[in-house]
Amino acid sequence: MSDQSKRKKLSRLVPTVRDVAKRAGVSPATVSRALGDKAVVSPELRQRVQDAANALGYRPNAFARGLREGRSRIVALLVGDIEQSHFSSLTKHVQKELSAVGTDLLLHDLEHREDRLMHILRQAPALQLNGIVLASSDTISSAAATEIAAARNAGIPIVAAGQDLTWAGVPSVTYNERAAARHSVGQLLALGGAPCAYVGRVQGSAVGTERHRGYCDAHEAAGAPRDAALTWDVAYRYSAGRDAVNRALREGIAFRSIQAGSDELAMGALAALTDHGLRVPRDVRLVGFGNVEMSAHLRPALTTLSSHAEEMARCIHQALDSQWQGQAPQELVMIERGLVQRQSS
Amino acid sequence: MSDQSKRKKLSRLVPTVRDVAKRAGVSPATVSRALGDKAVVSPELRQRVQDAANALGYRPNAFARGLREGRSRIVALLVGDIEQSHFSSLTKHVQKELSAVGTDLLLHDLEHREDRLMHILRQAPALQLNGIVLASSDTISSAAATEIAAARNAGIPIVAAGQDLTWAGVPSVTYNERAAARHSVGQLLALGGAPCAYVGRVQGSAVGTERHRGYCDAHEAAGAPRDAALTWDVAYRYSAGRDAVNRALREGIAFRSIQAGSDELAMGALAALTDHGLRVPRDVRLVGFGNVEMSAHLRPALTTLSSHAEEMARCIHQALDSQWQGQAPQELVMIERGLVQRQSS
Repeated sequence: MSDQSKRKKLSRLVPTVRDVAKRAGVSPATVSRALGDKAVVSPELRQRVQDAANALGYRPNAFARGLREGRSRIVALLVGDIEQSHFSSLTKHVQKELSAVGTDLLLHDLEHREDRLMHILRQAPALQLNGIVLASSDTISSAAATEIAAARNAGIPIVAAGQDLTWAGVPSVTYNERAAARHSVGQLLALGGAPCAYVGRVQGSAVGTERHRGYCDAHEAAGAPRDAALTWDVAYRYSAGRDAVNRALREGIAFRSIQAGSDELAMGALAALTDHGLRVPRDVRLVGFGNVEMSAHLRPALTTLSSHAEEMARCIHQALDSQWQGQAPQELVMIERGLVQRQSS
Repeated sequence: MSDQSKRKKLSRLVPTVRDVAKRAGVSPATVSRALGDKAVVSPELRQRVQDAANALGYRPNAFARGLREGRSRIVALLVGDIEQSHFSSLTKHVQKELSAVGTDLLLHDLEHREDRLMHILRQAPALQLNGIVLASSDTISSAAATEIAAARNAGIPIVAAGQDLTWAGVPSVTYNERAAARHSVGQLLALGGAPCAYVGRVQGSAVGTERHRGYCDAHEAAGAPRDAALTWDVAYRYSAGRDAVNRALREGIAFRSIQAGSDELAMGALAALTDHGLRVPRDVRLVGFGNVEMSAHLRPALTTLSSHAEEMARCIHQALDSQWQGQAPQELVMIERGLVQRQSS
């Protein structure tokens, strides 16, 4: 028997939230609400849904039972790469925010792989998750957008964190990456940092593309020429920053400052500069992105762009909560980053 | 109605794996196996369990259904603090190892809090997890050990990763922390690094206690006096390492080397030493613990003790797999750390 026919057979045997919704003549989201949060549906509607569930022998699983009993909710957090400090910090704060309202967090490391994203989205209805937070910096394909829409249609609240997915109908909480990079690179250029290099993922990264746009904006605003050889499109870790700088120096590419797409890349770049006897900021000014904890403990301490994981977690929770209440969440929340001035620029 | 009586009522209404086990006269683990992996129970036994499940109206939830259909398994990984690089790296490798055999990973950040550990252990049977990997460095109380035993009795395979929990009946995969610290500190003392300080969590950390024992062993072996004022018991992050060094220098405590309990603490210590105009390794030799990715990109590059997340993940998988096969796993697997010699010592 093929996997698909197995699944089909299974779905005939085990009534799902969709079956109950069809029988009760309501949306799957309404079924979840009727069996869950007692404040937001009328007693008549709840009874209708309950009758349909009983007639079909529908049983919510342990997660959903917990929800109905007001004991626990489960939200899945999907992150691009748990080894990147940005994602582990976001994880910590989202867990804190949600656990304060009795909600548990299931974390899923996507490893920047869309097949992993598709897999968890397809599983989501069966797991009867109470929400999905999609914290991926990677560009989302239209196939993935379709999968996201399917999960939403199954009544699962979804929030995008980090990139703007409103084009796919997903309420989003992002940073204003473009403005942040424009501000920071503008300052580097003003301080005599031209030519200024950009090191970080651009192609395939929705977030990186925004940051790189800000880098271009700043050159345009300053009337500074921009050399394509100074965009070092690499991913994602320390060694990529180190290797990019080593390569540029080997090739004799001249630069007086570097805007990095992450603090990790900046740290790798700093190591390569130091190894070549170049001093930061005297010879090369260097700015990171994201203000991860490590960056304050580098010497020279790293100038970088702030993150606000606590605020982002709060906005994520709000966007989920609106959906739990059956209300439309704010479509796009954009958080501004500030320049954290330290020793390296 | 109190929460407890609600739970009791719920457990009467919804038959659990334990109810099925009781009726079929087998263990809960056997129920899981009989409804799951088709290779390891006799057809007669499977039929008996299936009959009991049918009689009680027992339905495995989505996770368990997936398992039975051979589609997916879910293992929970509980980590002490996802922001510590050691844990995010372990997470990545455990997910890789398990996804290769069609198993998904649910990650749970304990924030070094035992109440969070208790909570997830209590939920585990209802979630019908296919396994729990307990990756916590914190000392486990007897109350938590009791909760672990309950989850095991409910048929959930458990593996400890990082600390030795064989005293609680849990198969464990650990590093030989004591030998690693003994070797490293022995070398520091031999290189003229006395007096040598230890910075890191000791009290309340099972792993830290082992490392500190190795630090004491090395002093004893070298016949070097050991001063309690040189054990800086702090947790867990960069700033703790920085603050400990700043405090010691302020108080005029003399030291010629530092063994840190983590690379993050070592990086914080390096920042404080640099700020005081002390040169590493000329004035103070410095060794980290764990060889997280960042440590190679510090300047001076950090000497540290190796980690083997890939091997640990493989051993964790083996310990789970033995239990899935109904076999006794190896009680204790101990992985040796090596000294990664770089510039700082």
